[in-house]
Order: sequence, then structure tokens, then C-alpha cells
Amino acid sequence: MKARRPGPTVRARVQELIGDAVRRHEDRLATEEPLEIRLEWPGVAARRVWVTMRTPGHDFELAAGWLRHEGVVGAGSAVHGVAYCTDEALTAEQEFNVVTVALDGPPAADPGHRHNAASSGSSACGVCGKDSVAAVLDVPRGARWAGPVPAPDVVRTLPGRLREHQQVFGRTGGVHAAALADADGRVLVVREDVGRHNAVDKVTGARLLAGEPVAGACLVVSGRAGFELVQKAVAAGTGSLVAVGAPTSLSVRLAEEAGLVLYGFTSSERCVRYA
Amino acid sequence: MKARRPGPTVRARVQELIGDAVRRHEDRLATEEPLEIRLEWPGVAARRVWVTMRTPGHDFELAAGWLRHEGVVGAGSAVHGVAYCTDEALTAEQEFNVVTVALDGPPAADPGHRHNAASSGSSACGVCGKDSVAAVLDVPRGARWAGPVPAPDVVRTLPGRLREHQQVFGRTGGVHAAALADADGRVLVVREDVGRHNAVDKVTGARLLAGEPVAGACLVVSGRAGFELVQKAVAAGTGSLVAVGAPTSLSVRLAEEAGLVLYGFTSSERCVRYA
Repeated sequence: MKARRPGPTVRARVQELIGDAVRRHEDRLATEEPLEIRLEWPGVAARRVWVTMRTPGHDFELAAGWLRHEGVVGAGSAVHGVAYCTDEALTAEQEFNVVTVALDGPPAADPGHRHNAASSGSSACGVCGKDSVAAVLDVPRGARWAGPVPAPDVVRTLPGRLREHQQVFGRTGGVHAAALADADGRVLVVREDVGRHNAVDKVTGARLLAGEPVAGACLVVSGRAGFELVQKAVAAGTGSLVAVGAPTSLSVRLAEEAGLVLYGFTSSERCVRYA
Repeated sequence: MKARRPGPTVRARVQELIGDAVRRHEDRLATEEPLEIRLEWPGVAARRVWVTMRTPGHDFELAAGWLRHEGVVGAGSAVHGVAYCTDEALTAEQEFNVVTVALDGPPAADPGHRHNAASSGSSACGVCGKDSVAAVLDVPRGARWAGPVPAPDVVRTLPGRLREHQQVFGRTGGVHAAALADADGRVLVVREDVGRHNAVDKVTGARLLAGEPVAGACLVVSGRAGFELVQKAVAAGTGSLVAVGAPTSLSVRLAEEAGLVLYGFTSSERCVRYA
């Protein structure tokens, strides 16, 4: 049986309640489905490294970008190929929810070590948070960018440019978006997802799979800039991160340490520089 | 050395850029720090089960609520005590970032099995996504609520009531909030956090540690209602979930299966019923 590939939105019957009136109509929801990412390299069979909830579409980019942000794809290990899993044990529904990334050599870092340390561990109490917390904060770092970054008057145009490309948001109001732009504010790529971290993985993965550079680009995100997004920006080696929403204490600290230019509360009128 | 307990916000020097003007001033950021949760029960020493980024404050509630939502605290296993770790190997900074929950009996479910399956796995390719994806979707279920839930005119008052309690948001603009309310719209407890899932863990944990029921309450969240939040509502046995933002395809599907009343796009003017 051939599976139908899930789209970015699904239809749903809803009731809209305004005062005492009930309006029944059809609505569009952002699709949310699990994606399993597997990794293989010469001599080593595919194994699971991560499962994330995501909006289907650009799944290969998501997988490649996630691996880049984890430091798995880096010096000495490039993406050789990406494919949906064709294992016959998969149901039709699962077929498009499992992606295998083939590297051309061994991974540059242990895939998922940051996440394994964060979940149920074998560590005795004596280790006391040092390993797990350190692993979570252990950010793979791309080369520090010393080139141009967008000037404030360019920064303030970026949320508007991002918004122009948010097609799924326009239909559902339920997804985040990320973009990469150059120092002049030209948008290089835009992706949407129910998870803001996935949208960031997808833009990096899109550039990676197209053989285009990510380093030095400006990462633009539709929401807040938490630690995880700054971590991805630092790992990808972007020169700046522009968020529509607020940063956190830890994201500002990491941006400062890594030399990443960080803007928050960005609108056409103003922006706030944090690092 | 006695550690200083981290607060929910920190000060930061920022530059606000409006047109060509640069205004330097002090701003408040939401604090984001890692929290390691450990679990012990009679005869079994403490071991790590999870690490999450969170806004410090109500950490015991976060830990207890997370364990409740994972099905670990349930029939036959209650929380006996919660404490910050006093291990001398911890640095001053780590002291308030590690919490140990003591149960009075063995856990009702394997702590973190849903999350372990999601990260780097030993599964061979032949297992093909079935176990990991199934584990992620395997939601612990509280008793189905057959009692009263808020009527639409009450639902529409809930975001406003939540907003009145959002103190950290007022100072930083960077945190989400969750509340539990009764069928008449009375707010029982409100908590804030940089992670919306943490805010939900905290409100459930607050009721749990106070010996108050969660089942049948209405869960109110300041953002969208993704799968993870619906999963927590179902696990806690709340009767309804009211979100200010959009739900996703998977959250509507789970709410329908579990008999949870789900509202989205809720404002004082309107609300949309999805399940």
C-alpha cells in the first residue's frame, strides 16, 4: 500500500462561539506528527538518534539541520544522502515519519549525547548533576563569524520580510517560522513548523543540502530566543540572531560568550540589542 | 559556600534602537537554568530521570508535576518528599538546579521511558520507528472526567484572569503561564515559566503537593496547545484545556480520543471548540 504523504495542514470541523452564537465551520490545523531521525555511515547500520514532533514537509532538511546543530555533521563528515525509510515493517502511516541520514564518514560528535545525558541516566547520585547539566550546556561551536552583520535599520525590516513568507501561519495561526538572511536583509530561505526549533533546523538543513554556506548568515525567528535557539545559531556559525520576542538570561549569556550578535523584541519600529 | 538561590528574572544592560537613536538602559530577562530531576524510592538510591531548562521557582512543584504527567506518580506511589540535592560534589551554582523526589513506593511507570525511546537508541533498523514513535505517543491517562466543565461564556473570561496573574511576563515579556481553574472560572493556581510545558507541570505539581485534586479542573495556557500540553492534560485527568493560541492536528486527535474538551484561539470575544 502506498502511503499518502502528510501535508503541512489538515482540515477540521470546529465550533466558533461568539456570545450566544455557535458558528460551525471548517478550519485548518497545523499538522503535528512524530519524525524519527536515523543515522548510518560506512560500515555502521542505521540506528535511531532522535524523535521530534514536527510539521511534515522539508523532513530531509530538518534531519540534516538537526545533525549539524548537534555537531554530528561537521569537519570530516558530510551528508551523503537522506531518504525516507523503506523498511517493510513500517505501516503506511509511519513511512513518511522515519528519515535515514547517511554520512560519508564517522560522525564528528556522538549523536544525541547531549540528549541522552538529559534523560533517564545510569549516573549515581555522586555525579550530581555535573555531567547531565554540563552536557546540556555543552554547545557544539561553529567558527566565530567576524564578517558583516545586518545594521539596526536592516534588522528592523526582517520580521516583516519573514512574515511575508509565512504561508502555513496565514492558514492556521499555529506555527513558528525561521529564516536565514544576508547582511543586506535579503531572505535566503524560510521554513515553518509547529516547533520553533524544527524551523531553525530546517533552514540550516536547506542550506546544507543545497551546498550553500550557513556561517555568517543572520538567523531570524518569529518567536522568543531561548537557549536552545541560540545554541543552534552558535553551532551553525551564524553571525547574528534576530528574534521577534524576548531572549532569556541563558541565551544572552551564551550569545555573549560565543560572540553572537543577539537582537530581541524586533519590530519595524524598534529592536533591542542584548549581546 | 552558601549558594544564592536564582530568581525568576535577572537584570541586563541593553541597547534599544529606535530610528537612529540608541537608548542604553537596564532591562529584565526571564531566568533560564537547567533543572535535573532525580527519583528515589525505598531501597533504591536517587538517580537522574530528566533535565529540563526552566525558570527557577516552584522547582519542587515542577518535579512533582512532571512525574505525575509521565505516569510515574499515580496509583500506589505518592510523593513522600522533595528536596534540593545536598551532595557536596555540587558547585554553588548547581545546588539549586538539582531536585530529588522521594516516592513512598516503586514508581507506577518507568520514569522517562517515553523520552529514552526518543533519543539515541539501541534499536536496530528492523524495529523501524514502531517502538520510538509509539512510546512518544503512549500517553499515561488519568481517569476520564465526566463532571462539569466551564461553559463558553466562562471559557472566554479565562485568558483575562490568567493575564492578571502573569507577574514575570509583565516584567520580561518572555514567559508563558498556565493555570488551573474550576468550572465556574475561579483560578486555583497560576505558574509562569520560559517553557510552557514547565508551567503546566508546575500547576499540577502545586495541587499535588498541596494535597488538592487536579482531576476535573480546567487547564488554561497562555500559548498554543501542542500535543505535549494535551498529553499532560490527559495524564492529569483535567476535564478541559483552554488555549489562547492554536491547537495542532495531533492535539485535537488526542483530545477527541481521551474525551478532553479542547478550546483554542480563546479571547474575551470568542473561543473555538475543537474537541
